Amino acid sequence: MLVTDLVNVRYLSGFTGSNAALLVRVSDTTPVLATDGRYRTQAARQSPDAEIVIERACGPYLAGRAAADGVRRLGFESHVVTVDGHRGLLQAAGDTELVRAPGQVEALREVKDAGEVAILRLACEAADAALADLLAAGGLRPGRTEKQVRRDLEALMLDHGADGPSFETIVAAGASSAIPHHRPTDAVLTTGDFVKIDFGALVSGYHSDMTRTFVLGSAQDWQREVYDLVAAAQRAGTDALAAGVTLSEVDAASRQVIADAGYAEHFGHGLGHGVGLQIHEAPGINAAAAGTLLAGSVVTVEPGVYLPDRGGVRIEDTLVVGFDTGTTRDTPDLLTRFPKELAIID
Amino acid sequence: MLVTDLVNVRYLSGFTGSNAALLVRVSDTTPVLATDGRYRTQAARQSPDAEIVIERACGPYLAGRAAADGVRRLGFESHVVTVDGHRGLLQAAGDTELVRAPGQVEALREVKDAGEVAILRLACEAADAALADLLAAGGLRPGRTEKQVRRDLEALMLDHGADGPSFETIVAAGASSAIPHHRPTDAVLTTGDFVKIDFGALVSGYHSDMTRTFVLGSAQDWQREVYDLVAAAQRAGTDALAAGVTLSEVDAASRQVIADAGYAEHFGHGLGHGVGLQIHEAPGINAAAAGTLLAGSVVTVEPGVYLPDRGGVRIEDTLVVGFDTGTTRDTPDLLTRFPKELAIID
Repeated sequence: MLVTDLVNVRYLSGFTGSNAALLVRVSDTTPVLATDGRYRTQAARQSPDAEIVIERACGPYLAGRAAADGVRRLGFESHVVTVDGHRGLLQAAGDTELVRAPGQVEALREVKDAGEVAILRLACEAADAALADLLAAGGLRPGRTEKQVRRDLEALMLDHGADGPSFETIVAAGASSAIPHHRPTDAVLTTGDFVKIDFGALVSGYHSDMTRTFVLGSAQDWQREVYDLVAAAQRAGTDALAAGVTLSEVDAASRQVIADAGYAEHFGHGLGHGVGLQIHEAPGINAAAAGTLLAGSVVTVEPGVYLPDRGGVRIEDTLVVGFDTGTTRDTPDLLTRFPKELAIID
Repeated sequence: MLVTDLVNVRYLSGFTGSNAALLVRVSDTTPVLATDGRYRTQAARQSPDAEIVIERACGPYLAGRAAADGVRRLGFESHVVTVDGHRGLLQAAGDTELVRAPGQVEALREVKDAGEVAILRLACEAADAALADLLAAGGLRPGRTEKQVRRDLEALMLDHGADGPSFETIVAAGASSAIPHHRPTDAVLTTGDFVKIDFGALVSGYHSDMTRTFVLGSAQDWQREVYDLVAAAQRAGTDALAAGVTLSEVDAASRQVIADAGYAEHFGHGLGHGVGLQIHEAPGINAAAAGTLLAGSVVTVEPGVYLPDRGGVRIEDTLVVGFDTGTTRDTPDLLTRFPKELAIID
């Protein structure tokens, strides 16, 4: 198998450079990692178990190498390799047959090992700590702007060991909280606003993901109602997380709570997604998803209710799916620990 | 032509959503923009001149649309479309022939119009102002860490209107300044260190790029020598920037200064690159580059000298290439204005 997706190369080999490909062979347990001269030292350090070859055209080189080694069939990542890239591989592969093999490594990545969970836990802790610091410093109060909140939160995550934010931080105040993926603006936070914050920390390549929604000043009845509803839906989704449950059932368990309250049309996105070396990866948890949850997957549960021109609430955690033996069923391991009770910020 | 690269779709249509494709026809000046339901309002606002179609499978839909319209030959971005994506297009296109057309939009993007230059100028100004603020606040002094400097600089760019950093900020102190693309660590800045900072601001999708190198405390003779050499090479590269000059000549003009001083082996990367909607885009300015500079291109000039285990200097500006009529030759327009004299920070 020829692996050319850089995230997949990193997953299999540990190498993090920006130009690489990996050849994995059934006949030989030593993979071949190709990269260019900039990364000679780094590749040797990060991938001590691989044979390292310095060659700028990594993919074609390794296809040629497979051909020279007498490989008859070589899998390639047809969901990643471009049409032009495929031409280069075909030329280099000679008589070796190139076989479409999409998503093979992504499927392996779906279940995390203990080391990966440990890093994801660190990433979630950095986000938890940053949000706690933000509130302790009075960073979320009327008069501040969405952009200022984002700035402080991202700086605080760096202080807590993050390598950066894991995606573009969402800070959405007032009516903008009804927009699921609002980008922070110079809009000023005002008493009575919902403030929805969706953010995460990047640690050693792994992404955390958490959403919390606050109310500034005092909460109106409709705000408490929507908040409590989303919180109940989030608990229902979390309670449904177990190995062997179908992905669409998990989505339905949470969505039904919102539908029963008459808000179905205001929850227009899927319930969650896997997180790991990418912020969105397998499995997707939504109504149309095929397949079942796997023990050891790390996923988000993030229902929301968005009322146009009024405001919205989303509550999101990142969790590790536990085992279900039929007689005993592990509860999911909650990685994002910041409280979820409605917090009214004075 | 079917455009599926999202940066290219943005360039041609103004639309910034995360799922889109664009059909551009010679027979009709109204392009067709396909995106999904999340972006209905945004697409109408950002792309008022396009016909907008809501359809999740954007590329195949537009290939089918072209076929239904009787298009005989449809160009596609073969450097972007994956092997699996190509299958989907082939099925949808029916009798319409799909023709490889790589890099067409990227070539258009190489020359910036006045609006693009204005945004790039803002991006460069945000970076200039952030660096000035950092120094004014004493943010670059012995005892601070590389990571702290990065944190402050990125927060200050946000304060000056940036949407974010334009790439992962490099802060490299002491011997680490000899590593061209060092990532900030907890290493403490020490008197006598070179501190190399390579960073930029993202504004409305456009990227700025600048490197400055400082000395903490007092400069040793070898540090002054290396700094003055790189500054001279940077001036030589900048002086060579004009429309019609071959890219390899621009590289050579700067590289020769470093080679003449006996440091050729310590300048191991290309002289510069285009910047715009991507941090690295056409043209590449290096010894192997084919082609010539175009008036209106926005490029970096960034020579460096890196002495292993001692330290390194890089000085980088972003500039607009001027016109050369044969009788008059515009000097390049300097967008990154932070001073380049050797600054010794007490």
